[in-house]
Amino acid sequence: MQITLIGSGNVATHLGAALKNAGHKILQVYSRNYQNAALLAYYLSAEPVNSLQNINGDTELFIIAVNDDAIGAISKQLAVYKKTIVHTSGTTSINDIVTDNSLAGVFYPLQTFNKNKELNFNTVPLGIEGSNPQVTQTLTLLANSISKTVFYATTEQRRALHLSAVFACNFANNLFATAQALLQNHHLDFDLLKPLILETAEKAQYSNPLAVQTGPAIRRDEKTMAIHLELLKDKPDLQTIYHLMSQNIIKMAVSTEPDE
Amino acid sequence: MQITLIGSGNVATHLGAALKNAGHKILQVYSRNYQNAALLAYYLSAEPVNSLQNINGDTELFIIAVNDDAIGAISKQLAVYKKTIVHTSGTTSINDIVTDNSLAGVFYPLQTFNKNKELNFNTVPLGIEGSNPQVTQTLTLLANSISKTVFYATTEQRRALHLSAVFACNFANNLFATAQALLQNHHLDFDLLKPLILETAEKAQYSNPLAVQTGPAIRRDEKTMAIHLELLKDKPDLQTIYHLMSQNIIKMAVSTEPDE
Repeated sequence: MQITLIGSGNVATHLGAALKNAGHKILQVYSRNYQNAALLAYYLSAEPVNSLQNINGDTELFIIAVNDDAIGAISKQLAVYKKTIVHTSGTTSINDIVTDNSLAGVFYPLQTFNKNKELNFNTVPLGIEGSNPQVTQTLTLLANSISKTVFYATTEQRRALHLSAVFACNFANNLFATAQALLQNHHLDFDLLKPLILETAEKAQYSNPLAVQTGPAIRRDEKTMAIHLELLKDKPDLQTIYHLMSQNIIKMAVSTEPDE
Repeated sequence: MQITLIGSGNVATHLGAALKNAGHKILQVYSRNYQNAALLAYYLSAEPVNSLQNINGDTELFIIAVNDDAIGAISKQLAVYKKTIVHTSGTTSINDIVTDNSLAGVFYPLQTFNKNKELNFNTVPLGIEGSNPQVTQTLTLLANSISKTVFYATTEQRRALHLSAVFACNFANNLFATAQALLQNHHLDFDLLKPLILETAEKAQYSNPLAVQTGPAIRRDEKTMAIHLELLKDKPDLQTIYHLMSQNIIKMAVSTEPDE
């Protein structure tokens, strides 16, 4: 397909690379910031543009990968070309895309992306939504060309997925950052935690997280929890998080086997 | 070394297997529950016992891997044999071990263990503490025989490590379980989140978690956060966790690059 990328951030970068590698032609990369557009366009053998006035209408698909707030306004400016317009947002409704021809869709990659880290896009689940069966079919074919996990998701389902992803990824990463800060306070190296972090994620690949929960809360080990809360006495926000997460563990607990 | 394992839970199981594989002799496995003792003892070619009266005093080292609350009472009963006694707890002081000869220590594996999941023990960081240089040396040698990451940690440092591990592992796993429950409410498969969970942990292996934080909170995307809180309107506990974790992300934010 001939594709135009609107955006040059983490999602646009990884999606663009995957599409190019699958043999699709990226015509143009748009970013308000010309340097950002130029850098990604160079990598994708595309033309950089930093004004929507310079968009080439001879594309087949516009992929809008920018902040959610800008999707409506940008699609409104692209509508004139009467091509399919999709966004990549987890939370934005398909109806927020402005079109002149009702060819709208969603192309939602369920993954955390950073420009500076490579990633095998083939493992990224892609959630598809189309404004009509033709769009859905086109997007499904496109998605299958870059990912082995393609699924149909309504806006409501996509929002639930995104919310779940915020818990499982964004908040988990913040816990890693919090742990790192706690270690730094005691002159301990974050490297010591890395095998634990990896093992925790690997366990979730093969086991029900509820069934493999470990730690003081699931053991109702009040003494250890009291020591931990005391260690956090100068950090009331972390005390509150500790308390709430421990309560959530206890609440969700299913039958588990304590350490001897 | 000739070693006696007190306990048959997740830690005792993995530690026992690693020690046996490294050529050490596990003499006995003690558990109050004879079946648990027998199962692990069979695997370790050891003798199962379910009464501390039947302990064989001709051992070199007692490793106590039971609930923290039982460490004091059990060590008191083992003190009579005048051998080195260590515990494996993240939070319990070395001074909670009762000895007749002052040969006490800590052998703390910084990992999450489940009996039913295999693990390469060589990657597990082992924190050592000894009541005197001789114990420390013995434990360091023993630790080096089963792990490539051995470090000395005071009780205070070990507590900070354990607290960090609760955030990075126990609470992260609870976030995975929470995400799974949210998906189930929308008839969505937890499998869709697994690549994201793995990628999040893999990013933490090579990047500073603060620097690779993604999601609506770090982008100050109030609209998305409002939609997420609305989706959680029947789950006040999760709303509170969502709010607090988002605040923590914003508070910890260092210079980061938003999506275009």
